[in-house]
Amino acid sequence: MSKSYTIAVAGATGAVGTKIVELLEGANLPITKVKALASKRSVGKTIPFKNTEIIVEELTADAFSGVDIAIFSAGGSLSEKFAPEAVKHGAVVIDNTSHFRMDENVPLVVPEVNPESLREHQGIIANPNCSTIQMMVALEPIRQAFGLEKIIVSTYQAVSGSGARGIAELENQVKEYIDGTPLKELTAEILPAGGDKKHYPIAFNALPQIDVFGEDGYTLEEWKMMNETKKIMSDDSIKVAATCVRIPVVSGHSESIYIEVEKETSVKELQELLAQAPGVVLQDDPSQQLYPQAINSIDDKATFVGRIRRDLDNPKGFHLWVVSDNLLKGAAWNSIQIAEKMHELELL
Amino acid sequence: MSKSYTIAVAGATGAVGTKIVELLEGANLPITKVKALASKRSVGKTIPFKNTEIIVEELTADAFSGVDIAIFSAGGSLSEKFAPEAVKHGAVVIDNTSHFRMDENVPLVVPEVNPESLREHQGIIANPNCSTIQMMVALEPIRQAFGLEKIIVSTYQAVSGSGARGIAELENQVKEYIDGTPLKELTAEILPAGGDKKHYPIAFNALPQIDVFGEDGYTLEEWKMMNETKKIMSDDSIKVAATCVRIPVVSGHSESIYIEVEKETSVKELQELLAQAPGVVLQDDPSQQLYPQAINSIDDKATFVGRIRRDLDNPKGFHLWVVSDNLLKGAAWNSIQIAEKMHELELL
Repeated sequence: MSKSYTIAVAGATGAVGTKIVELLEGANLPITKVKALASKRSVGKTIPFKNTEIIVEELTADAFSGVDIAIFSAGGSLSEKFAPEAVKHGAVVIDNTSHFRMDENVPLVVPEVNPESLREHQGIIANPNCSTIQMMVALEPIRQAFGLEKIIVSTYQAVSGSGARGIAELENQVKEYIDGTPLKELTAEILPAGGDKKHYPIAFNALPQIDVFGEDGYTLEEWKMMNETKKIMSDDSIKVAATCVRIPVVSGHSESIYIEVEKETSVKELQELLAQAPGVVLQDDPSQQLYPQAINSIDDKATFVGRIRRDLDNPKGFHLWVVSDNLLKGAAWNSIQIAEKMHELELL
Repeated sequence: MSKSYTIAVAGATGAVGTKIVELLEGANLPITKVKALASKRSVGKTIPFKNTEIIVEELTADAFSGVDIAIFSAGGSLSEKFAPEAVKHGAVVIDNTSHFRMDENVPLVVPEVNPESLREHQGIIANPNCSTIQMMVALEPIRQAFGLEKIIVSTYQAVSGSGARGIAELENQVKEYIDGTPLKELTAEILPAGGDKKHYPIAFNALPQIDVFGEDGYTLEEWKMMNETKKIMSDDSIKVAATCVRIPVVSGHSESIYIEVEKETSVKELQELLAQAPGVVLQDDPSQQLYPQAINSIDDKATFVGRIRRDLDNPKGFHLWVVSDNLLKGAAWNSIQIAEKMHELELL
């Protein structure tokens, strides 16, 4: 059997969509054609792909005619509207938004962690949240080897997680500051959450709000990390608590993670395990000041892990520092990996 | 009895020293004279104080002649050398460096938390580390009311903690970036730790290293938070784990803190308690997107607390977000408060 796919990218002109098209060039997938879909105002723009240029078409239901794989990264409401249309047209949907993630009929997949869930798909597969994905890549090998009882994570998230407009907002604020504008008066129109009422400067600040607040005082971003973790690891008994914070970094999410494992282990064993783990690059040598850094993660597909150390009060407690490019492994690259894995498992 | 003090500020031209002289203007202390001491190269500079100007003198042993209170903020090695000299000359020393903090003959004091420790002083009183102080102000009222078993803290620390040169380094890197220098090539000569071998850009980055590494994989900054907490709270049984991270913020340290208390309580009770607590300003209303922010803490003496929420797995577990100006409550203001409290307790 020789298959080759027509792949549509919905939201092809956005921060993540652009990366998806770029990464498809090197993907381990036979590709006949890539269709770039976006809103009306982007129609006619061109996007380079291999030795040619793709002309952006409007995102409509009919645009999915003849499409085998549709990768969505155009916002939750557009996924809600068009993903079922793409499925009706015979495509398999890989959705980057949060819209379908907790739907019990939709597998939520990190290919290094739960590839077998793909077999249960009914047309739509969800890509987890960026901050969840890198944590899963780092912790799943530990869970498999030593069990995992508890996770407490505090994040240091980049503005690119809120799209190209978030990056522009940070860069503009930095320029305003250099030109003499006081910190509290920097122009803020997007962050901390595009859809929320108030906006605060992110330059030279730390904002403990990503996405909107729920009634229990947790933000939606925190809720995602906690609930997606349980779904991806297929274990509702894992205790997970998240505090999600935006900081003035362009790209690359960092996470300070505390875990409690079930079986005794050591820092050395964890380092050896993670050095071999799929998708992980271990950077952990305090004597050389070697640890993961956001700026070094940019444009790299790996999840970087370092600063592994034992808790001084709990022999089964460990601390880690986990960093990854939120636009790649946190979004675009994970989507491509899902498509590759489905091809490999002959699910397409 | 009517007392009035001659106060020396050692390191008067530094980031913290400057703030100390500023704050002495409004201090609740009868002051006869302020002496500004610094290294030879600053001698002759003037510092405004009330309606006059103080001329900077050289930091020598003899400079402490006639001094009642000597506030040190000139680095650990200068405190080591000159603090005992100041004591010999009859001064009480309030030291901002880490040099004497764990000395069992030296009280380590946050005036809102353990003022009575001042009575045991033998000439030198230590000011705790900036990141420890704000955590103590927020957690001591909780410890007193409900007991405190465990603390897990991840910090988001500003560059001003590394002095005026740290601020200049961040600002220069930001300018380089705006002018087109790639992130990995920004000029780094100070951070993450002035005395360490390698230096990394802090602009648009998060560095999980503050101060040098110890053999157990924890940094000295983390070690300080863990050990100073136990000393200040006079309780070696409290479990404390810290991950200390520098982020591109000019001033204002933020902390994501998880605690486990001994007695049952609620978010509402904790909010009511902290709203009344000395030195604390509660900013906790998710419905109004109200929470502490680094840029709002600058030049304020308070410790701001918000985002208080119950852990979803442990009814005695709570999460908080704590922010304070590291140069004020984290350093200069706490020193002044120590002097005021010693005056109040008639220990001078």
